[in-house]
Amino acid sequence: MKKILMVIVDGLADRPIDGKTPLSVANKPNMDKIAAMGINGIMDTIAPGIRPGSDTGHLALLGYDPYKYYSGRGPIEAAGAGINIKPGDVAFRVNFGTVEGEGSIFDKVVVDRRAGRISDTDELVKAVCEGVRLDVEYIFRRGSGHRGALVLKGEGLSDKISDTDPHEIGAKVWRCKPLDDSEEAKRTAEIVNSFMEQSHRILDSHPLNVERAKKGLLKANVLLLRGAGMCPHIPPFEEKYGMKLAVVAGTTLIKGVGRIVKGDIIEVEGATGNKYTNLDGKIKAAIEALNTHDFVLLHIKATDELGHDGDFDGKREFIEKLDKAIEPLLSLDFSKVCMIFTADHSTPVMAKEHTADPVPIAIVHEGVRVDEVTTFSEFEAYKGGLCRIRGRDAINIALDLTDRAKKFGA
Amino acid sequence: MKKILMVIVDGLADRPIDGKTPLSVANKPNMDKIAAMGINGIMDTIAPGIRPGSDTGHLALLGYDPYKYYSGRGPIEAAGAGINIKPGDVAFRVNFGTVEGEGSIFDKVVVDRRAGRISDTDELVKAVCEGVRLDVEYIFRRGSGHRGALVLKGEGLSDKISDTDPHEIGAKVWRCKPLDDSEEAKRTAEIVNSFMEQSHRILDSHPLNVERAKKGLLKANVLLLRGAGMCPHIPPFEEKYGMKLAVVAGTTLIKGVGRIVKGDIIEVEGATGNKYTNLDGKIKAAIEALNTHDFVLLHIKATDELGHDGDFDGKREFIEKLDKAIEPLLSLDFSKVCMIFTADHSTPVMAKEHTADPVPIAIVHEGVRVDEVTTFSEFEAYKGGLCRIRGRDAINIALDLTDRAKKFGA
Repeated sequence: MKKILMVIVDGLADRPIDGKTPLSVANKPNMDKIAAMGINGIMDTIAPGIRPGSDTGHLALLGYDPYKYYSGRGPIEAAGAGINIKPGDVAFRVNFGTVEGEGSIFDKVVVDRRAGRISDTDELVKAVCEGVRLDVEYIFRRGSGHRGALVLKGEGLSDKISDTDPHEIGAKVWRCKPLDDSEEAKRTAEIVNSFMEQSHRILDSHPLNVERAKKGLLKANVLLLRGAGMCPHIPPFEEKYGMKLAVVAGTTLIKGVGRIVKGDIIEVEGATGNKYTNLDGKIKAAIEALNTHDFVLLHIKATDELGHDGDFDGKREFIEKLDKAIEPLLSLDFSKVCMIFTADHSTPVMAKEHTADPVPIAIVHEGVRVDEVTTFSEFEAYKGGLCRIRGRDAINIALDLTDRAKKFGA
Repeated sequence: MKKILMVIVDGLADRPIDGKTPLSVANKPNMDKIAAMGINGIMDTIAPGIRPGSDTGHLALLGYDPYKYYSGRGPIEAAGAGINIKPGDVAFRVNFGTVEGEGSIFDKVVVDRRAGRISDTDELVKAVCEGVRLDVEYIFRRGSGHRGALVLKGEGLSDKISDTDPHEIGAKVWRCKPLDDSEEAKRTAEIVNSFMEQSHRILDSHPLNVERAKKGLLKANVLLLRGAGMCPHIPPFEEKYGMKLAVVAGTTLIKGVGRIVKGDIIEVEGATGNKYTNLDGKIKAAIEALNTHDFVLLHIKATDELGHDGDFDGKREFIEKLDKAIEPLLSLDFSKVCMIFTADHSTPVMAKEHTADPVPIAIVHEGVRVDEVTTFSEFEAYKGGLCRIRGRDAINIALDLTDRAKKFGA
């Protein structure tokens, strides 16, 4: 059977500044070869004008309707952190952050939402798990960098509660509030607030934080919760498509998308999800996974971060670095592998945020109707033979090209 | 009132081999004129990546959602064979095939699924209808060539049963099995198996088959059933659109689509659905039908068969023959007639099967936004003013162009 490789470069596309984007000005001969070898188009990952998250975008690209299957960032982050969540559990995305001030945790002000981009939180997580006592069972795990996930387990819980992360610097930590009148929401909010207070007390006086403060580093003394969600009922990828899924990704969120559809996560040494990631290792791992799996999703993250940072040159430079690294993909046997090269959304340096501007997509496989597009960019892709498609179409088109699609009708 | 002519060339489009398709290399000045006179685009008959059958594809092109109205091939074949099916009836597509071996029909092996492409089955059908006795009323009719349809009539039946056609040569005939636990499915499966045994006994010893065997021809000694379906509840075309529908087609399946939406089937002498069909007669009939009907569907089949056969040159030659035959269409008064020229799906000679690769579509009518496309092919259509549309859009666009569309809103 033929295989499918989907390469998703997070936030790759831009809005032009003076008619230029990092992608359009980058020197990227390999991406351009992919455009020239394939059929091209632009893609609305969810729908025109709908700004995708990386999680909803990836769900759509795997063929799942995010309006049906997405239930917040929490469950996906938790799955990505390796927590086995069950229906009924409530999961949260967690940031280690820094607060200053006096009084209760809810009187203190957030001075950094990433605790100075702290990298190692193992000891702190351990201390929280040993010290915090709640009315329910819970699991708290670290993710990469300042990231983590919290899962409240058991019955009688609700995800209709507010965040404790105020989402901006200089604001006080929010008290968790029930968002409906249910007893479950009220109870869950109380549990969350207790978690906030206890964990802050433990973290603020933890020797590692005392030491950080001495060194002039920001304390990682608050856990900012957001994206409360209950575990979705989602059909496993293999059940849906009859294909074994492998995900090669550095970030917890994308691993989480892979895990909630029961794909295999391929761990790669040095895959960090930032611009220093082990690109060669990830690309090698993705190619190797084509031997053991039917559908391989390779996710590259740094373009998105550089877009969020508004760093035009940094984004262009990373695209050039990535372009060199993807050279081995050009030697794949495209009579046996269908490669989709695209992005999950735009993260324009001008917007510093995800936008709904459609992304370029190129599909390479024997038998595709190769078009006249020879440059992979926002300004050329729409001239190609795919015209404008949706994110959920991409996998169906690949299934058709690889003769895995079944005829509907006679 | 203005009229609409939809010309559907079955399986017309391809995947390129060395950058060429039968359509792209064919000498077809008339189709190119249609492209030049009209607005062009590509069309996903059902949706991107979804491989259409000719039945589901034609339903979509007539504006019916096949996910809502399609209930298997059986009812459409039966309608096409002229059987008046009613809700509750269970219909099957039937092939005359050839089995060899000893024992019961379910011990025998299928050596040909088309009984050597037998052409005249009138006598055999008569013998089966006279000889087979079932617990229910039934109607068995021939279609074109080796094709036929069977309808079990009455109450207490189910279409949740398996095929008896094993779908491959060298396999034993399948015993019909219930696909759910209902009494209806169990009973229907038993009736089908009895039909299989009785009809085989009658056919195997029929004088015509004895004679075929003597001549070294394959016996038409089994009836292979597939596509069990119950008659769908589908609104008549005239009720849905206020237009009288005429269908000019050689094949039972497409006549069936026309019949289930209560269109008039225009019979044309020598319209066979293969490459020897009476093209001039069909085109003349379609043009004449524009005098008596509002919407005329003209279906040309052979391109699909030649695609299934993997016959590149044969497909190109037939396209050239068709191109000559359609010349009278260019003289239509396009201030009064809107012509849609397209296909129901691709049947690439490289795939020998329907694929979801989008098909070219050209729409000619006074007032369309004529674009720069002057060649009707897979490599040019997508550059046209229609961009990429869906099958169900086509009729709505024609309704709009012919001022039959009603405004939605004020």
